[in-house]
Amino acid sequence: MRIVVLTGGIGGARFLTGVRAYARQAGAEVTAVVNVGDDVIMHGLRICPDLDSVMYTLGGGADPERGWGRAGETWTVKEELAAYGAEPTWFGLGDRDVATHLVRTTMLDAGYPLSAVTDALCARWRPGVRLLPATDDRLETHAVVSDPGGGSDGAGTQRAIHFQEWWVRHRGALPTHRFVFVGAEAAKPAAGVLDALAGADAVLLAPSNPVVSIAPILAVPGLREALVGGRAPVIGVSPIIGGAPVRGMADRCLAVLGVPCTAAGVAELYGARSAGGILDAWLVDSADAGVAVPGLTVRAAPLWMTDEAATTEMVRAALALGRPGEERG
Amino acid sequence: MRIVVLTGGIGGARFLTGVRAYARQAGAEVTAVVNVGDDVIMHGLRICPDLDSVMYTLGGGADPERGWGRAGETWTVKEELAAYGAEPTWFGLGDRDVATHLVRTTMLDAGYPLSAVTDALCARWRPGVRLLPATDDRLETHAVVSDPGGGSDGAGTQRAIHFQEWWVRHRGALPTHRFVFVGAEAAKPAAGVLDALAGADAVLLAPSNPVVSIAPILAVPGLREALVGGRAPVIGVSPIIGGAPVRGMADRCLAVLGVPCTAAGVAELYGARSAGGILDAWLVDSADAGVAVPGLTVRAAPLWMTDEAATTEMVRAALALGRPGEERG
Repeated sequence: MRIVVLTGGIGGARFLTGVRAYARQAGAEVTAVVNVGDDVIMHGLRICPDLDSVMYTLGGGADPERGWGRAGETWTVKEELAAYGAEPTWFGLGDRDVATHLVRTTMLDAGYPLSAVTDALCARWRPGVRLLPATDDRLETHAVVSDPGGGSDGAGTQRAIHFQEWWVRHRGALPTHRFVFVGAEAAKPAAGVLDALAGADAVLLAPSNPVVSIAPILAVPGLREALVGGRAPVIGVSPIIGGAPVRGMADRCLAVLGVPCTAAGVAELYGARSAGGILDAWLVDSADAGVAVPGLTVRAAPLWMTDEAATTEMVRAALALGRPGEERG
Repeated sequence: MRIVVLTGGIGGARFLTGVRAYARQAGAEVTAVVNVGDDVIMHGLRICPDLDSVMYTLGGGADPERGWGRAGETWTVKEELAAYGAEPTWFGLGDRDVATHLVRTTMLDAGYPLSAVTDALCARWRPGVRLLPATDDRLETHAVVSDPGGGSDGAGTQRAIHFQEWWVRHRGALPTHRFVFVGAEAAKPAAGVLDALAGADAVLLAPSNPVVSIAPILAVPGLREALVGGRAPVIGVSPIIGGAPVRGMADRCLAVLGVPCTAAGVAELYGARSAGGILDAWLVDSADAGVAVPGLTVRAAPLWMTDEAATTEMVRAALALGRPGEERG
C-alpha cells in the first residue's frame, strides 16, 4: 500500500508519526508532500520550516516542548546577529538549525533542487517516510495587510508581507485581506510528487492549517489536478476540534477567508471531489460527531494526537474511510 | 600624523594594539591594510580570518588563549555540520564567528564590496583604527604541493590547495613548491588603500608572515607601486626573533621560498627600497642586534609583544626609524 500525505509543519509532523507507525504495521510506503510556502531566506540562509519540522520530528531531533526546531537548541548565532543589528531579529534561528540551513543553502547554490537537498538532509535523519517538497521552485506565502502608515484618505493602503513576518513577528494579529502564494503560477510539482500521487492507494490531508499549509501545496499548478484526477481516495483529517484549532492559528487564517472555524467549515473549504473540490472523506473529532458535509463521507474518531498510539489509531480511522466496505464509522 | 600598517592576522592584530595605543598618545590616525589571501568560502560563508582576527582583537572580542576566533566561543554549528557529513570538518567555525560570516556573506551577496562590509562590521566592534582589506576582489593564497596520488614516473604531480587547507588541515607539513595568489592579476586595491598610502606619514609592516600575510597584500597590482612611490618611510618589524618565528609557521613558509628563517633573511626578501625593494628601515629584536642588511637602517628593540605597553614601545621604536633625526637606535 502506498500512502501520500499532504502536510504542513508541526501538526502534520506529529500526524506523520502516526502514519509511519501505521505503515510499519501494514507494510505500507509513505510519501509526505510538504508545504514550502513558509520557506524564507533570512541572513542568506534558505529556511524551510515545514520540511524541517517534519524531518526533525520523524528523525527524533525535534524539541517536543517548544514544538518547533531542534531539541537542545542554543541561540548564539541569533544573539550575535542581533549584536550586529542584522534584521530580522524576531525569527527563531537556532544554532543547530543554522547548520541545516547552511547545508541546504550551499547545495541549492550549487544547483541541486530542493527535493534532492531534502533527500540529502534525510540521509542523516532517516525519517522513515519519503519527504518531498511540494515544489522545487520558489513559492512563498505572503499576507496582504493594511499598511497603517499608508493612505491619506483614511482607507489605508495594503502591502504584502512574508508569512513568517505575519505569523512570527505579528502573531497573525494584523488586519489581513488575503494570502497570496508568490511564484505559484510558475511553480512545478517537485520531482516525484506527481508520480507519488499517481501511484497512491490513499491520499491523506494532514490536520494542518488549510489556509497556509495545505492551500500552498494545492496552488502548485498540476498538483491539485493530479490529486483530483487520481484513483486514490482523498481523506482529510480535520484540524479543527469543537470550533478551535488543535494548535496554531488556523482560526486567524480562516477568518481572513471568511470561513467558519469549524470542522464543517474547513471541509467545505476543501470541497467534495464530486462537486469540484478535492475530498472524498472527512474525519472529524468525536466532539464533532454528527457533522455532515454534502458529498463527503464523514466519520468521527478521537483526533487529539496525545501520543503515537493515539495518532496511529486516528490514521487507521482515516484510512478506513477510503475503504468503504471496511469502515466501521 | 597618519600611519598605515600592512598586516596579517593574529600577530598583526596584536601589533596593531600597540599602534593604536601609540596613536592615541600621539594623536595619530591609523589605517590597517589587511591581507585577504587567507579568505575562503566554506559552507557558503565568506570567511576573512585576518580581517576578523584584527577586528575581534582590537574590538575586545578575541579569544586571547586560542589566539584566533571569538572569546567564549561555542561549536554547535560545526558539530552539526559534521553530523551532516558536510566537508570540510577540519576548519574551526565557531558559532559566534558564524554570525559575522553570515552578515558579511549577506552583504557581499547584496553587492557591497568587502571594504564596505568591513566598515559595517566595525560599527559594532569599534576597533579604533580604520580597517581596509587589501583588495575588494577575490585573491586567494594557494599552496602548490606534491600530490602523492599522482604521477606514475615516480616524480609525482603537483596540485594547488587553498592556503587554509595547507595551514589548518595539514599544518604546513606537505612538500610544497610555491605559493600562488589566485586572482591577484585582476585585483585592484580596495577603496581607500591607495589614498591611505599616498597620505601616509609612515608605513609599518607588521611582524606578520612575510610569505603568506604581507606578500599577498603586495601582490595586488598598484599597491606595491603606491608603497614604493610614496613619500612615507616604510619600516618593517621582524617576525623572526633569534632564528624562529614569534608565532605561527613563518619558518615553513620561508623554507618553501628558500629564504633563511632569520631577521636578515626576511629583510632581504622584502628588499631595500633603494634597491628595488620596499623597505627603508628594519626593526629587529634585541636578540638580533647587530644584524645588518644592505640599504636598510636597522635597529634593535624588544619585539616580544607581551602586553600592550611593550607593544607600544616597539611601535615607538619602529616609527623613530622613520625620523632619522630622532632615532636613538
